[in-house]
Amino acid sequence: MMRHLLLPRCAPRAAFNVQRSSSFGASVLRAARQYSIQPTAASDSKTLDIDPRKLVIERTGKPKALKDSKDLVFGANFTDHMLTIEWDKSTGWHEPRITPYQNLSLDPATCVFHYAFECFEGMKAYKDKAGKIRLFRPDKNMERFNKSAARIALPTFGPTNLIDLIAKFAKLESRFIPEERGYSLYLRPTMIGTQKTLGVGPPGSALLYVIASPVGPYYPTGFKAVSLEATDYAVRAWPGGVGDKKLGANYAPCIVPQREAMSRGFQQNLWLFGEEEYVTEVGTMNFFVVIRNKETGQKELITAPLDGTILEGVTRDSVLSLAKEKLAPEGWKVVERKYTMPELAQAAEEGRLIEAFGSGTAAIVSPVRSISWKGKVVNCGLKDHEESGETTMKMKQWMESRQYGDEEHEWSYVCE
Amino acid sequence: MMRHLLLPRCAPRAAFNVQRSSSFGASVLRAARQYSIQPTAASDSKTLDIDPRKLVIERTGKPKALKDSKDLVFGANFTDHMLTIEWDKSTGWHEPRITPYQNLSLDPATCVFHYAFECFEGMKAYKDKAGKIRLFRPDKNMERFNKSAARIALPTFGPTNLIDLIAKFAKLESRFIPEERGYSLYLRPTMIGTQKTLGVGPPGSALLYVIASPVGPYYPTGFKAVSLEATDYAVRAWPGGVGDKKLGANYAPCIVPQREAMSRGFQQNLWLFGEEEYVTEVGTMNFFVVIRNKETGQKELITAPLDGTILEGVTRDSVLSLAKEKLAPEGWKVVERKYTMPELAQAAEEGRLIEAFGSGTAAIVSPVRSISWKGKVVNCGLKDHEESGETTMKMKQWMESRQYGDEEHEWSYVCE
Repeated sequence: MMRHLLLPRCAPRAAFNVQRSSSFGASVLRAARQYSIQPTAASDSKTLDIDPRKLVIERTGKPKALKDSKDLVFGANFTDHMLTIEWDKSTGWHEPRITPYQNLSLDPATCVFHYAFECFEGMKAYKDKAGKIRLFRPDKNMERFNKSAARIALPTFGPTNLIDLIAKFAKLESRFIPEERGYSLYLRPTMIGTQKTLGVGPPGSALLYVIASPVGPYYPTGFKAVSLEATDYAVRAWPGGVGDKKLGANYAPCIVPQREAMSRGFQQNLWLFGEEEYVTEVGTMNFFVVIRNKETGQKELITAPLDGTILEGVTRDSVLSLAKEKLAPEGWKVVERKYTMPELAQAAEEGRLIEAFGSGTAAIVSPVRSISWKGKVVNCGLKDHEESGETTMKMKQWMESRQYGDEEHEWSYVCE
Repeated sequence: MMRHLLLPRCAPRAAFNVQRSSSFGASVLRAARQYSIQPTAASDSKTLDIDPRKLVIERTGKPKALKDSKDLVFGANFTDHMLTIEWDKSTGWHEPRITPYQNLSLDPATCVFHYAFECFEGMKAYKDKAGKIRLFRPDKNMERFNKSAARIALPTFGPTNLIDLIAKFAKLESRFIPEERGYSLYLRPTMIGTQKTLGVGPPGSALLYVIASPVGPYYPTGFKAVSLEATDYAVRAWPGGVGDKKLGANYAPCIVPQREAMSRGFQQNLWLFGEEEYVTEVGTMNFFVVIRNKETGQKELITAPLDGTILEGVTRDSVLSLAKEKLAPEGWKVVERKYTMPELAQAAEEGRLIEAFGSGTAAIVSPVRSISWKGKVVNCGLKDHEESGETTMKMKQWMESRQYGDEEHEWSYVCE
């Protein structure tokens, strides 16, 4: 289908640094260690890396009409084109192609349909005041994309090569990116296994593709705080599992619990773990709380550590960095540590739970009003008329300032 | 794409009997209870069930040449046709179609590619001495298929309706089913979510399809005992997860550990769980051991219980039934209970571990020679020159006798 590249190139490939442990009981969770298989970069000069110089562009003959910005629905409308790169194990990566947005034609035996050989990324392109297009920390997305792919025996690639191609793709779709604050182009890099046999094993071929959807602000009329249901009957992730990777496998199993929570009037699940009822994530976002320390009176921004059960959120990392930069000098403690639902409930009772929010690419931050837990309501610090806490609001502003390039910062990658 | 059925019919639908528990620590695993969300049948008369009377058949104009039986590779070659049934949430199930085997054409935003909305079944059609085609316990496959689908918010269906259609499909492909003992037609019912938006939620549309691959005996030259690596650094399933369902999500994450085990000379992973090192499954099969009881001297056939972390294998259930029917009268104890790797190692040391085997649709039973665990080798009772224990051999014979209809039995479903 695709012609092969002629120049052999070095590509980072994944080898596995398997961390062995004799057991994973709830008690060992207290220690700060990694409970998942981690890929480490290894070079493989035998097959071809992604090569942006070989990009072939086929422009659409039927450009789509632009939707009114206010009618945009997350991930429901897509741009004119898509970026695709095929891979097979003997050649490596084939030439990248930008083509008109089109259906994929796949044999019904293709392994992505049977064994969930699939991983993805979520990232955004923003248009700045000068009309330039900017990606936000694409290096972090590429790093995670490679980790996810390697964890399910899909191929890895040189991160800067794909960033280069995504930048070209985003520029080509520039007319789809609204200029208003809060709007952006959501980019969805996806990798699927395409081997068309039913034997369970590493796929011998794969397809990497990127599609793009113009999106509006998550909260068009300003923040709206959500109510959560603390969930223990279903468990999102487990030590030794794949909850820290952005795999399709982590999503479908969460839909029924989400529907259950919604049927009881809660917008999202707060995923608990273990006998201790550790707080892990909220819905498909990382979770942060602001607590006043009982002994010292110090404000603490707390989130669960990257122990292998928590998605390594790019927004999570950005929130932590911003907090260290801007809140720590004001006397805050910024801490990644395990914390439990009983601890939150106690802090709330004592008036020390000041704020709670989720973090993710779609919403940036999402304020939380309350958590339903064991028949009681744990109030997360908002007054009845408030839809967001102060820190949540600040975080959104700080983040957007860098995303839209108001503040020149290394996190912002200008598509040249 | 497909016209809708005109007759409203009742269809079993899934409602959720959510079993709540405050925690899932390793200690509570000792109790015999269910650690997963279970669907219960509920009727929904508002949308259409699968209706075999509406079947539309479009025969291929290009029948494939038959492969030589000895060249058959599991799941690599497929028959002339496929069975497809579309679903959408307002209509229900559309008319079933048998069409030439062909690629699926799907939007790149389709939710199966991103969030692993996919589940499947593995079952076989056998040709008996009279040339009749027989399915083996298709009711068990349909029951599990519905449970898997419901767990990830995909639609359910009336089991006998799909069995009827699969029987018609298998009969249509009769020429692909070799008559020799050990050969069969592997059937792969698959269901995927087809909604083409990136929002994370229940799919509003789905596709159920069945493809078929002629297969030869798993051990063409007789049994070959395998060596296992006891795996604790990666965890296949956990309480509150989906390890008891046949979801794509359970497969891709197991490939890297499998590759790791193979790189160290072992054919499969023996999946352990928790601090206690409970023995759960082997590769993609259920696991059985034969142990002589230390106190009573009684032979015991042991397998892990269906606690929500174990796949509800049809072959597993058949092995248990056959053992109760044929071994129990000879004084055996047939037991589903939790057992640990230290327990197996001790039994082996004391000469009481008589036999071990995996069970699954592909191999029926797969004898195990040894388990590598913590740097030592646990021998599973075979002498050096033996490739299978006595019970394993008997199980295969008993099972095949019913699969091929040598023994008339209710497990065998004749495709009329």
